[in-house]
Amino acid sequence: MSAGRNLVVAQSGGPTPVINSSLQGIAEAARDLGAIGTVYGARHGIEGVLREELLDLSAQPAEEVSLLRFTPAAGSIGTCRYKLKSGQDEDFERVIEVFKAHDVGYFLYIGGNDSMDTANKIARLAAERGLELVAVGVPKTVDNDVGDSEFQLIDHTPGYGSVARYWMQMVQNANEENAGSCPADPVLVMQAMGRKIGFIPAAARLADPRREMPLQIYLAESPCTLEQLADQVNDQLRRAGRCLVVISEGFDVGELGEMKDSFGHTEFGSSKLTVAQVVVNYLNQAGLATKGSARGNVPGTDQRHAMAYASPVDLDESYCVGRKAATLAAAGEGGFMATILRNPGPYSVRYEKVPLSDVANSERSFPAGWIAESGYDVTDDFLRYARPLVGNDMVGLPLVDGRQRMTRFAPIYAEKLLPAYVPQADR
Amino acid sequence: MSAGRNLVVAQSGGPTPVINSSLQGIAEAARDLGAIGTVYGARHGIEGVLREELLDLSAQPAEEVSLLRFTPAAGSIGTCRYKLKSGQDEDFERVIEVFKAHDVGYFLYIGGNDSMDTANKIARLAAERGLELVAVGVPKTVDNDVGDSEFQLIDHTPGYGSVARYWMQMVQNANEENAGSCPADPVLVMQAMGRKIGFIPAAARLADPRREMPLQIYLAESPCTLEQLADQVNDQLRRAGRCLVVISEGFDVGELGEMKDSFGHTEFGSSKLTVAQVVVNYLNQAGLATKGSARGNVPGTDQRHAMAYASPVDLDESYCVGRKAATLAAAGEGGFMATILRNPGPYSVRYEKVPLSDVANSERSFPAGWIAESGYDVTDDFLRYARPLVGNDMVGLPLVDGRQRMTRFAPIYAEKLLPAYVPQADR
Repeated sequence: MSAGRNLVVAQSGGPTPVINSSLQGIAEAARDLGAIGTVYGARHGIEGVLREELLDLSAQPAEEVSLLRFTPAAGSIGTCRYKLKSGQDEDFERVIEVFKAHDVGYFLYIGGNDSMDTANKIARLAAERGLELVAVGVPKTVDNDVGDSEFQLIDHTPGYGSVARYWMQMVQNANEENAGSCPADPVLVMQAMGRKIGFIPAAARLADPRREMPLQIYLAESPCTLEQLADQVNDQLRRAGRCLVVISEGFDVGELGEMKDSFGHTEFGSSKLTVAQVVVNYLNQAGLATKGSARGNVPGTDQRHAMAYASPVDLDESYCVGRKAATLAAAGEGGFMATILRNPGPYSVRYEKVPLSDVANSERSFPAGWIAESGYDVTDDFLRYARPLVGNDMVGLPLVDGRQRMTRFAPIYAEKLLPAYVPQADR
Repeated sequence: MSAGRNLVVAQSGGPTPVINSSLQGIAEAARDLGAIGTVYGARHGIEGVLREELLDLSAQPAEEVSLLRFTPAAGSIGTCRYKLKSGQDEDFERVIEVFKAHDVGYFLYIGGNDSMDTANKIARLAAERGLELVAVGVPKTVDNDVGDSEFQLIDHTPGYGSVARYWMQMVQNANEENAGSCPADPVLVMQAMGRKIGFIPAAARLADPRREMPLQIYLAESPCTLEQLADQVNDQLRRAGRCLVVISEGFDVGELGEMKDSFGHTEFGSSKLTVAQVVVNYLNQAGLATKGSARGNVPGTDQRHAMAYASPVDLDESYCVGRKAATLAAAGEGGFMATILRNPGPYSVRYEKVPLSDVANSERSFPAGWIAESGYDVTDDFLRYARPLVGNDMVGLPLVDGRQRMTRFAPIYAEKLLPAYVPQADR
C-alpha cells in the first residue's frame, strides 16, 4: 500500500453499462500512479460517505476489478439519488468529517451536472474547513445531457454510446418483426429514456441510416399533438403498410401521474401510465388506417443495464476518462471534471479537464439543427456525430456456466471511526 | 433445379429469434435431398398462399439463406395471424387451387398447435380434391406451449430456449441495477410474455439458480391478489431492501382492456394497460415498506426478436427440426410434425415425428410440480429442464458497419397463375 492520502470514489444518479469502466480506470490508475493511498468506493454514492460505508477497493482481487468492464449498472459499489442540498449543512459537514477521519485527500464523483455541482461544493467547504481535498468529477449519463450545447465542455457523456448501440440494434431487430408480422401488428411503439433531451430516441436512426424503414422518431424537443402523431403514423401505414414509432419518455402527451425523484426530476419509470401506452391507446381507439393494432414496448431500465449492447468505444472511453480523473487528482488538479473532447478529422478523442463550475452551470440541449424538417426524424449531422460512439463490434461477455460473470467484491470496509449518522433527508 | 414437385413453406403466429433457422434447415435440406423442386416461401404465412405470393427461395443466393441463422423474427418471408377457420371453405379451396397451379407437393407449416391443426385440415382436403400433398408441421413458439404436459409429443418448442436466455441475462443485468440503485428504486417489475403459460417468466430463475437475488416470479398459473403480492414484495423489502418482480403478462390483475387477435387469443401488447403497470401503480399507491418507489419494464416483442440473446442450442435445434421436416416431406411422410425429444442422461435430443392430429388435440400446461411452495418461484426440477436449452455461449452476430447483417431476399416470386383473391376474413 502506498503512503499517499486516500481516495474516495462515489457514483450518483442512474447507472449505465459503462459506469463501472470508469470505476475500473480510477482504481487501476490510482494503483499505478503510486501517489494515492487506499481507494475506497462509497456504498450507494454520497449516502455511503455520510454513513461511513467505504468499501476498500485496493484490497479487492485484481480479477474482480478488471471484471468491472463487463459489469453493468452500479451493483459493484452502488449509486444513489440522494442529493446534498444547499441548506443541508449538517450533511456537508459530515462529509468533511468522514474524509478527515479517513485521511481522504481525493474525492472523485461520477455523475451528471448535479453531481459536478455537489463535488464543487464539497471541495470549497473542505478548503474552508482546512481539509486539503482534491475533488475531480467524472462524467456519466445515458442521456448525454452533461455539459454544453456547443460540445465544448464535453463531446459526449460516457454511457450514451452504449444506450445508442442498444437502440441501433433493438430497432433493427424490431424492424424484422414489424416487417414480418404486419398486417397483424402494423404499428410498434417503443419508448426511449432521456427525460426531456432527445439523444437516446434519436439514436434509433442509427438502425437505418439510409431511411429504408418506416421509422418515426418523436423527441420531446419536437412536440406535436396526439392527433398529429396519429395522422403521421397513418400516412406511413398508407405508404408502407407498417410503422415503427420511437418516442421519448418525456414527450408531452398530457398527465401521466409522474413521481419525482429527490433531484426533482420526473421519474418516468414509476409513473401511472407511460407515454407509449398513451400513444398505443390513442392509435387503437382512433383506429388505424390499415387493419391490425398498435402495440408498445417499454424497455425501461434495461436500456441502461443491458451489457450485451455495450459499445466498445464507450467502454474504452469510460475507462480512459476514469484514468484521466485519477491522474488529475494525483497531480493535485482539483475543481475539474475529466472530459472527452473530439478531435477534428476521422473519429478520435482526447481527454482533458474542464472546471467543475463550468459544467455545473452549463445545460445541454439537443441541437435544433439535428431535428429533421418533418419533426419526427433526425438529420445526417446527428448520425455523423453519433455513429462513431457505438463502435463497430459487439463486446464479448465473459460467461460462466452460461451466465454473465460479473464483479463480486468482497465486503472489506474501512473501519467505522465516527458515530453513526442519519442523512438529513432520511430523518 | 430438381425435377421433383415444389414445396411451400409458411410461418404462422408470433415470430422468434430462431424461426428463420427452421426456414434455413428446410431450404437447405430440400436442396440437398434432390427429390424436391422449387422451395417457395409464402409471404405472410397462409395469407401469402391465398394471395398467391410465393417467394422463390431456391433462386436466392446461398449466402442470404445461410444468414437466416442470424435474422430474427419473420422479416424474411413474414408470418401472419390469419386463421383458416372451419366454415371458411372458400379459403381452404383456394389453398388447394394455388397448390395445384404451382405443382406443390409439399406443404411445411411452421407454427404452434393451431397451425398444426390447419396443416392437418389442408392435407385432408387435398386428399379429397385429388391433390397428392405431403403436409408436415414444424414446431415454433416462444411460449413453449406446443404439445402435451408430459413432454412426450415434444420436449420443448424451438424459440423457447432463446427467450429463456433473454430472461436469464436480462434479470442478471437488472439485478445489478437494482442492487446498485436501491434505496431509490427498490422494486423493479418486469413483465414477461407467455399469455397463460409460465415457461417464459419461469426462465428468470435461470439468472439466479442459487437463489441469491431477491427475485419473485409470478406465473399466471399461481394467482394471488394484488394485496398478497404487495405483502410478499414488502416482506422481501424488509429482508433484502429491494425486490425484483417478474410477472406474466397473463397474470390476473383485473380488467386491462385487452384486444383479441384473430385466433381469439388475448393481445397483451395492445391492451390499454399492462400487468406491470397495474402492479407498479398498486405498490406505489399502497406505499412500499422501504423508501423509494417501484418501477416497471415491459420489454414486449423485444423478447422474441432480440437476436443478441439467441440460444446457440435453440438455433441448432431449430435448424435440425427444419431439416427433419423437409426430410419427412421428401420421404412422403405427411400428416406429421417434426419434433424434438430429449434423451435420458446428459442433455441430448433426437428428431422424430408425431402425428399432426395428436399435436392439434394436445394442450400443454406448466407442470404444477415446478411451481415452488411459496407460489412465487419455480423449483430446481424446472431449472434442470430449462438450463440446457439456453446453451453455454452467446451467439456472435455478423455485423457490417456496426449494424447486424441480416438476410435480404431478392423479390423473386412465382408467376401469378390464378385470378386475384381476397382472403375471406378480409372481405
